[in-house]
Parts: sequence; C-alpha cells; structure tokens
Amino acid sequence: MTVSYDNLVTFTKTVLLRCYGYSEKEADITARVLTEADARNIPSHGVSRLDFYRKNIQGSFAKPGAEPEIVWQTPVSLVVDGHDGVGCYIAEWSVSKTIEKAEQAGTAFCAVRNSNHYGIAGLWAEKIARHDMIGMAFTNTRTCGIPTYGRERVLGTNPIAVAIPEREDRLFLLDMATATVAHGKVEVYDRRKKPMPRGWAVDENGVGTTDAAAFEHLFYANPTYGGHLFLGGEGEENGGHKGFGLALLVELLCSGLSLGMSSLNTFQKGKGAGITHFFGAMRLDLFGKSGDLKDHVGDILQAIRKGETAVNQERIYIHGEKEAEARVNSLKNGIFIDDATRKLLDSLAKESGISIV
Amino acid sequence: MTVSYDNLVTFTKTVLLRCYGYSEKEADITARVLTEADARNIPSHGVSRLDFYRKNIQGSFAKPGAEPEIVWQTPVSLVVDGHDGVGCYIAEWSVSKTIEKAEQAGTAFCAVRNSNHYGIAGLWAEKIARHDMIGMAFTNTRTCGIPTYGRERVLGTNPIAVAIPEREDRLFLLDMATATVAHGKVEVYDRRKKPMPRGWAVDENGVGTTDAAAFEHLFYANPTYGGHLFLGGEGEENGGHKGFGLALLVELLCSGLSLGMSSLNTFQKGKGAGITHFFGAMRLDLFGKSGDLKDHVGDILQAIRKGETAVNQERIYIHGEKEAEARVNSLKNGIFIDDATRKLLDSLAKESGISIV
Repeated sequence: MTVSYDNLVTFTKTVLLRCYGYSEKEADITARVLTEADARNIPSHGVSRLDFYRKNIQGSFAKPGAEPEIVWQTPVSLVVDGHDGVGCYIAEWSVSKTIEKAEQAGTAFCAVRNSNHYGIAGLWAEKIARHDMIGMAFTNTRTCGIPTYGRERVLGTNPIAVAIPEREDRLFLLDMATATVAHGKVEVYDRRKKPMPRGWAVDENGVGTTDAAAFEHLFYANPTYGGHLFLGGEGEENGGHKGFGLALLVELLCSGLSLGMSSLNTFQKGKGAGITHFFGAMRLDLFGKSGDLKDHVGDILQAIRKGETAVNQERIYIHGEKEAEARVNSLKNGIFIDDATRKLLDSLAKESGISIV
Repeated sequence: MTVSYDNLVTFTKTVLLRCYGYSEKEADITARVLTEADARNIPSHGVSRLDFYRKNIQGSFAKPGAEPEIVWQTPVSLVVDGHDGVGCYIAEWSVSKTIEKAEQAGTAFCAVRNSNHYGIAGLWAEKIARHDMIGMAFTNTRTCGIPTYGRERVLGTNPIAVAIPEREDRLFLLDMATATVAHGKVEVYDRRKKPMPRGWAVDENGVGTTDAAAFEHLFYANPTYGGHLFLGGEGEENGGHKGFGLALLVELLCSGLSLGMSSLNTFQKGKGAGITHFFGAMRLDLFGKSGDLKDHVGDILQAIRKGETAVNQERIYIHGEKEAEARVNSLKNGIFIDDATRKLLDSLAKESGISIV
C-alpha cells in the first residue's frame, strides 16, 4: 500500500488524539516525526512504532500530557526533565530551546532525562542544522547491547546523529546506531532460516553467534544475558571495543549529563521508561562566514562523491543522501507501507474511526 | 630496553633541540607528548615518530619556529592557522586557548588548519578534561582510507578522542581511529606471512583482501587505489558505512570548519602537510554540580565494569583504563622501547651527543 505524506500525517495524528490520549501538540509532532521516517524509507522508526508507543502508555512508561521542565540552565546549556512525557514532544521542545540559546550564544547543549522514544535521531540533528548550525542528537534506548568481553546487556543501541550544512541546502546527515545492526535485521534472518553474519550478536555466554533463530529466542526470553554487539563486532580484532566505546560515550552524554537513568535501568516497572537524550547546536559562523564554510564542506563531499567506485559498485553515497532521495520519491509517489504495518494501521483505523486514505 | 620517563623526555627534547631545529617550547611539548604515548603503551605514536617528524621537516611539510595565529574568533570559538609549524606545539597552544575560552563562556571549540601530526589525540582530550570539562580532540591524517563502495584513498585514519571526568580523578577516555586498524597491524601480519582478518582493507579494485603482503606492497607503491577500511569493514553488512561516516564527520569538523585541506590533499609538495584538527571543551557544570555529575558518570561506568564477563574473559575494560594502568607501570618500572625504536634512538644519540640513559 502507498499513502500520501499528508494523509499519513493526518491519520496518525487523529489516532494519537482519539486513541492514545495525546494532546494536540503531542499528536501533531509525533505524527510528523513518524511519517518522516517512513518517507525516508526508515520504516523501523515510522508509523509501525505506534504499537510500541501504545504499549509504553499501557505500561505507564509514557504519560501523555506531562510537560517538560528545565531543571538547570546556563546561557549555553540546559537540562530538561521530561517527566515521562511523549518523547517526540519533549525532543521538539528541548531542541527548540537549544536552538534559541545557540542563536544568542553561538552554541548550546541540552541533556534530557525521563523522556521516551523520540523517533529518528537524525531528524533532530537536521532540525538544528536548518538554522545554519551543526546539529547533534544522541539518545540511549532500551538495553540490548553487550560490552566488549562481557555477556550482560548493559547498553542500548545508542545512536549518534550529526548534521552539517552543505551548499544548496544539502546536509551531511550521519544517523547511525552504534550497535552493529538493528534487531529487525536479525528477525529477517530468523524468518528466512539463515545464519546471520558474524559480528552482530553474542549468545548467553558472551560468545559470538550466527544462529539467528536461537538468538531471536534468547533476546526475548532472557532479559539479561546475550545481546547485540557494537560496531566492529566481537573482541578487538575488528575494533569492537571502539563501537562499544562510542555506545558508552552516547550513554555518558545522555544519561550521565542529565543525571538520568542509564540504558541498563530503562523500562523498569513503576519508574518510567527513563530514556535520555543529548542535543547540541553550534552556529557555523563560529568558524567563518557561513557561506564559505558550506562551500568548503561541499567541496570536500564532492571530491568523495566523485571518487572511483569499487568494481561492481555504482555509487559512493554521502550520509543522508539515500534517505533524502527516498523522501523526494515518497512525496511524489506516496509512502510505501508494508503488510504488517498496514494490518496495524487497519486496526487503528477501525478503532479511531478515521480511514487511512 | 627500558628507559625512565624523565630520561626519555630529556633525551627526546635534546634531540629535537640539537638536530631538528625545534625551539625550546616546541621541543619541550613534543618530547612530553611522544613520551606519554610510549608510557601508555601506544608505541606507534611514541618516540618512534621521531623519524617521521624529521622527514616532515626535510620535505618542508613541517617548519619549526612557525607561530600559530588566530584567524577568526568569537567568545566560544576560534580558528587557528598553524602556518605549517610543529603539530604538538600548535595543539598545545590551541587547546590552551580553547580551555581559556571555555572557562569564561562555559564551552568553546577550535578548528585548526595547516598543522602537523600532534601525537595521540587522547592526550589533548585529557588535557581539557583535567579542567572539569568534557574534552574532545579530532584530527585528519595522511590519506589512507576508502569510502564504502569506493576504491580511491580519500580520507585519513581520522581519530575521535573524547574524555569525560569520573570521580576520583579518573577519566573515561575514548581515543580511536575511525579506520578499523592502524597500518602497523597490517605490517605485523605481513612480517609473520599470515593472512590478515577480513574487514581491514581493500585492494586496488576496492575489493576486500586478506593478503597482508600484497596490501603492504600496494599501500606504498600506489598512492591512489586500495587502502584501509573504516570501522565496520567492507560494504554495509557489518556497518562499514557507519565507520566511513564517522571518518567523514571528523574530516568535516577538522578540515571543513577550519577551511583547511582535507586528508585527500595532505602532504603535497610545496603545500605543507595540511593537517587539520578540531578541539572542544565543555564545562561539566553546564549540566549540574560538577561533583554530582562525576559521581553519576562513575556509577554508570562502575555498573559496566562489574558486569559479568564472557566465558574465558577476565575483565571488561572501560576506555582509557589499559593505557592509564600501563602509564602507572611505566612510571614505576620504566618505559619499554622495542628494538627497532632503540636503533633509531641510538643513531639520534650519536648525532646529538646525548646518551639515552
């Protein structure tokens, strides 16, 4: 099924208003954030998350209507307590305040505690970058990852997103989980009954595994042992300790600087989801004339785009290009919704009384 | 051979003064930076670099005596032109000014162009962190790395270093090349006539190779094609595009924001080395009471240290611990110098007229 961008926003917003108890502003930003992910061909973070968002309300991890609060601030920083509210709304609120401070002071940083899932990290980095700033967005997540030489899950997928403006309104937009792959990729191998690649996960003993089916079972059956590896895989041979270090860096920026919960303590009954974020904004003109910098960034990226490709490869992609091109296509031809997500949307359509198209 | 810390500093400083034409202050900081790397058991960045540093002077890439200059600044930022001077001196000078600004404004960032090799990135991040700040240090390097789906060398090893203070004067200190491994690791496999692991390098066609001997030859014989892969390896299956993205991020922060040369254009005859850096300093008390934050960071790290290990593993290391422990050992028992480096030091001893011990 394909749906137009505007229709998907309207449908999602209405569902959130009628069935989730979201306020107007919570529903509006959440619908836009989820639709953007689908439009960019990142369906793992699109409207399929409506199921997860509802479970979070049912489990008292997310409380629509809660207002974020600034609990510490300076001219270049703020710490926000999200009071377990709606993640996308808390992120929008916090990012807006970060941009305001950076407009004044040149740069600003924001640590957020007691929040919830905020959609694709890259969208927040991009929102900042559209103000001729370098934008940064990090978040911890539910625990799923294993440190180098460990076997207990202690970190989230802990993504890093950084956006840097290029000329002609283009952006370098890196948005990457520090885990090697998202869990959804394991599920694909499980469904196809194939072994998954080495370097994705370890079993309950902390030993690398390619058994997707066994890992898929373990992942849900056992809350503590075995889990995802970080970029670089198992041990140190291919740099797994570096990926683990990046995940830990994200954890310290988000949970450490907000005095919030770490991934290890997220989603505990009676305590809120405990998701934490970190945002950064740095005006380009801290370093020169904004136009000169965007041209120079463009020159550096262009040299890489134009580099010769490996045999049998057609193109070197700069980060964010695939998603930006998918978005153009979605706006023109509609957003593709897969069958599983369609089923979810159909049931929400029935419940809310609004049709998708 | 082992040498005491103080003797290695004195020896190195004297060599730089007598044989390299370094000024007193250039020689002093460079000797300390190189000795620190050896003391931390990072010999690739220790006094063995004296050879490389001399070649850079001979090739007119580095010009001892050149003074760095601020070419753009705001209360929270500065851009430095190193005028092809001594890398460690330019870094020390730039980091000191960054810390001064951050003391005043809460946070500050510094982009540096026309510099040279500045030793281990982690040392600069640590220097900042010792002021109760989060410290960041990035640098581009000589070109050696291949973008995902490419075959031309267009990026350096482009390390990321971030230091975050923990209680009891400890630091989380991540210092990692974004390339999967340093070139020195390939050399070890070549010497031992063994295939190297997959995910380290591609050949001249951009195809993954495990042939260490052939790659070692290619790396020096061909300046353009084939080179190192970034964290995550070849293609996207294990996240190679993420490592490439991190390397590109470092390039844009260092070369982009300084309006400097990118790794692709470094070390061109008549143009200086063209190495660029980026430093960041962010006071901890932007986010709360500094002591509370260090305690909380300590709690998060302690939970990870105490996690259960994988079978046959003894310890989960937090980033920076191995190096900090090696340093304690070196201060007590002397710094180990391998035979190849000893040969270099012996020849420099003869030339300069100072003995090592």
